[in-house]
Amino acid sequence: MSTAEKFRSISPAEFFYRNKEIAGFANPARALYQSVRELVENALDATDSHGILPEISISIDRDPNKTYVYRITVKDNGIGVPENYVPDAFGRVLFSSKYVLRQTRGLFGLGAKMVILYGQITVGEPAEIVSATINSKKIYKYKIMIDIKENKPIVLEKSWWPNKTSWHGTIVKVAIEGDWGKARQKVLEYVKRTAIVTPYANIVFRTPDGEIKIYQRVVDKLPPPPRETKPHPHGIDLEMLKAMISETKTQTLLDFLSEEFQGVGRVLAERFITKNNFDPNANPKTLSKDDLEKLVRALKEFNEFRKPRSDHLSPIGSDLIKIGLSSILKPEFVDAITRKPIVYEGHSMIVEVGIAYGGAIEPVEEPLLLRFANKIPLLYDEKSDVAWKVVSENIDWGYYDIVFPAPIAILVHVCGTKIPYKGVGKESIAEVPILENEIEEGVRHVARSLKLYLARKQKEEEAARKAITLIKYIPEIASALVVFAKSNPEPVNVETLESKLFELVKNRFRDSLKNISSPRDVVLSVE
Amino acid sequence: MSTAEKFRSISPAEFFYRNKEIAGFANPARALYQSVRELVENALDATDSHGILPEISISIDRDPNKTYVYRITVKDNGIGVPENYVPDAFGRVLFSSKYVLRQTRGLFGLGAKMVILYGQITVGEPAEIVSATINSKKIYKYKIMIDIKENKPIVLEKSWWPNKTSWHGTIVKVAIEGDWGKARQKVLEYVKRTAIVTPYANIVFRTPDGEIKIYQRVVDKLPPPPRETKPHPHGIDLEMLKAMISETKTQTLLDFLSEEFQGVGRVLAERFITKNNFDPNANPKTLSKDDLEKLVRALKEFNEFRKPRSDHLSPIGSDLIKIGLSSILKPEFVDAITRKPIVYEGHSMIVEVGIAYGGAIEPVEEPLLLRFANKIPLLYDEKSDVAWKVVSENIDWGYYDIVFPAPIAILVHVCGTKIPYKGVGKESIAEVPILENEIEEGVRHVARSLKLYLARKQKEEEAARKAITLIKYIPEIASALVVFAKSNPEPVNVETLESKLFELVKNRFRDSLKNISSPRDVVLSVE
Repeated sequence: MSTAEKFRSISPAEFFYRNKEIAGFANPARALYQSVRELVENALDATDSHGILPEISISIDRDPNKTYVYRITVKDNGIGVPENYVPDAFGRVLFSSKYVLRQTRGLFGLGAKMVILYGQITVGEPAEIVSATINSKKIYKYKIMIDIKENKPIVLEKSWWPNKTSWHGTIVKVAIEGDWGKARQKVLEYVKRTAIVTPYANIVFRTPDGEIKIYQRVVDKLPPPPRETKPHPHGIDLEMLKAMISETKTQTLLDFLSEEFQGVGRVLAERFITKNNFDPNANPKTLSKDDLEKLVRALKEFNEFRKPRSDHLSPIGSDLIKIGLSSILKPEFVDAITRKPIVYEGHSMIVEVGIAYGGAIEPVEEPLLLRFANKIPLLYDEKSDVAWKVVSENIDWGYYDIVFPAPIAILVHVCGTKIPYKGVGKESIAEVPILENEIEEGVRHVARSLKLYLARKQKEEEAARKAITLIKYIPEIASALVVFAKSNPEPVNVETLESKLFELVKNRFRDSLKNISSPRDVVLSVE
Repeated sequence: MSTAEKFRSISPAEFFYRNKEIAGFANPARALYQSVRELVENALDATDSHGILPEISISIDRDPNKTYVYRITVKDNGIGVPENYVPDAFGRVLFSSKYVLRQTRGLFGLGAKMVILYGQITVGEPAEIVSATINSKKIYKYKIMIDIKENKPIVLEKSWWPNKTSWHGTIVKVAIEGDWGKARQKVLEYVKRTAIVTPYANIVFRTPDGEIKIYQRVVDKLPPPPRETKPHPHGIDLEMLKAMISETKTQTLLDFLSEEFQGVGRVLAERFITKNNFDPNANPKTLSKDDLEKLVRALKEFNEFRKPRSDHLSPIGSDLIKIGLSSILKPEFVDAITRKPIVYEGHSMIVEVGIAYGGAIEPVEEPLLLRFANKIPLLYDEKSDVAWKVVSENIDWGYYDIVFPAPIAILVHVCGTKIPYKGVGKESIAEVPILENEIEEGVRHVARSLKLYLARKQKEEEAARKAITLIKYIPEIASALVVFAKSNPEPVNVETLESKLFELVKNRFRDSLKNISSPRDVVLSVE
């Protein structure tokens, strides 16, 4: 019996180093995909989230001597990282600017560090960071590695030069072990789908094969950037409440509730306090453990608070979705909807759904699903995503006159300050009922729109066919008119003319017109 | 344009607090399931992994006043946690005894802390830990909470009393917000499946409804406990190599390679060093960055090392699987196989597959799949698990004469020092090709065994039918014998007797016996 257990603590860097699979770094192919993804998402967060039209360039170079080594370089024109934060932002796991209530692509404070960490354990070269903030007089360059045991940055080199062109942005260059052959299709698809939801971005991608993919900006309009927000009482827990109380400058419970939360305000705070028998003048910092517990429960259960706001969120917008789908997929029909905000655990969330049909889209056996969360394309684990469930199980496509194989693509975008991802690899979204329902409503909306389009198209085609049929009769009608004109030199009224003409035509086409009893029938059926 | 980003660092406790969903604590129902699971798995790791026959009791009590509050108590007779480690082991995220190369149920150093953390943010009561190590003169009791911002334990109370009965083990009691109505089915299934793979354990489970489930030990034999092992060169990376070199007491590369790795030894180390032109006498601590990189690559690519050992692993064993399946599912047929070890990224892994058929098993449309990893039942995310792929896609059950609905259950157990889980919630295993193949081979093996059983069963049934048919002839044969005996008073040999008898019988049953030319035919076809 062995009972001597060795206890020890590991740093977050060591935790994710040991469990890199769960952050999406399972093997060289997947790691190459994930690395491009994390760096591109940081680049976009540094640009469009701050009102800057993104200029992103991505390049992947294969090392001529060590063919398993790839150097990834991602450059943006974003806000840059302040000089003093560069080492931690790239060399300390769980250090980030994204630990606030704001819609961002990044969430975990892991992405870039995981890329650097993976490069470090597979190739061993330091990462190179070049950055300048807006109006910075200098451009800084760092070479950084991560001390995994201690979870802290190792700065191997730091230099700077004058910023003569007033450039701002960030360039990250990392060497990792990769497998382009296996990653190629996913990486190309990732960049393409990113371009679909950021039609306002210029994206240039140079592959290790020397291929250059250019996604040119097709619109200059940026969606309004996301903004930070206060917590909503329905999203609170005991720990969060304690943290808020320890930081607040308010002196009374009434002030605390009306100022530190969204959806509350003075009137609702008073009503809440009265209903639950709290003391409005109590200093929140003196509340007992029992009071706090009672307060959390009451905050969660009081249903008169205003809904969480959503004006701090940054959906893509139905116009940009339509532009994105049109410019990349080149379909014959496109539609999109931005749904009203919903609430999930005190966080607001917005679902957007787009549809594209026909044109250059290849017919497929199941709808091509383009999934996005906070403007990030999700490519792996499709079958375990809530959107896949909606599209493949909940919707009866026959009802919308879609018979597979059909040339159809569905885009689903979920944005919010909290996304119920199934893992830190950010690949699929959990089956939260309210979200599933919302996506389903969205898909039904655009599917109805497609159904109407298809019906109208069919009607137009039928009308055209009928018109062509009628046109064939023109010579006959013309000759009939001639006969009629000859036999009736004097003026007649319209009804007489019509019925005379009809008799003449009918005599001539007895068989094909036997079901028509008046010329009005034909006219109406063509409309 | 807002460019003032707020950078900050968060502790691992805060990270998992913010992202509790990814550790399996997504909502009160799921959290109740996950809490039971984490505590039971710790209890088992503290017993069977150390050669102790487990005595586990689990109880869940609903608070009579606050119906959303559940108190979970799990008690084991394991090795206990040493007094000085209790606070960190239960109050510091990423502090664990499981950060070694050994097959354990726990892997991440997260489980119990996540339960306590979730209880703390939903109910706010401290967790209560009672523990005594083997031969401890005292039993200690702690009340602990977690300082989430700092990731450190807060000890609210510590006491002890004399250990008069020489008890050893651990009792953990935590109050969390739960939802028994929604969690019930999964929790019951979890405990039942745990009992299937630990037929050597006594498990008593009292539910909030007062129901008591008892799983009585059916065998006294424990599988050999897992043991710690050294790293294999194929599982190494640059970072691990540096850490090993900084800790080694060896002075030369030759000693380092032959002593610190498994699968190497002196002869192979020499051959490896010669082939790759290293200096056998170089002090590993003086190797340059380039040397280290070259060494890692060479270690990974050298294919003459012995395979990773597997004698440190602790599979369940085919006998115990059969006993477990029989005692819980009560089938008419059961079989199991423990496959040979395979290697995944330098870690050995063993796959075991069991099958149960008929008896008390209900017919189902798809095989009932019982998934286990390092003896943990996996219940969620079945469809994204590699074993599900094998059972539902790779295997054509018709080939094994199984037509659904059929009363069939398949058990798949994967054990190893590293399990390629898809997330820290430990719910599904990734589709690693070598593992998929191994599971498929295992399922095919037991499916063949079932096919043989079913064929044999059918044959026996047919034989029985034939025997019954023959028995029907007995009166006829008897009367024929009488006729024969009367006409032949003198002795005859056997052949003569048989052919005479045969003629007599054949004359009487001309039609039904027309294909039989000798009595031997009938005898043989019945065997």
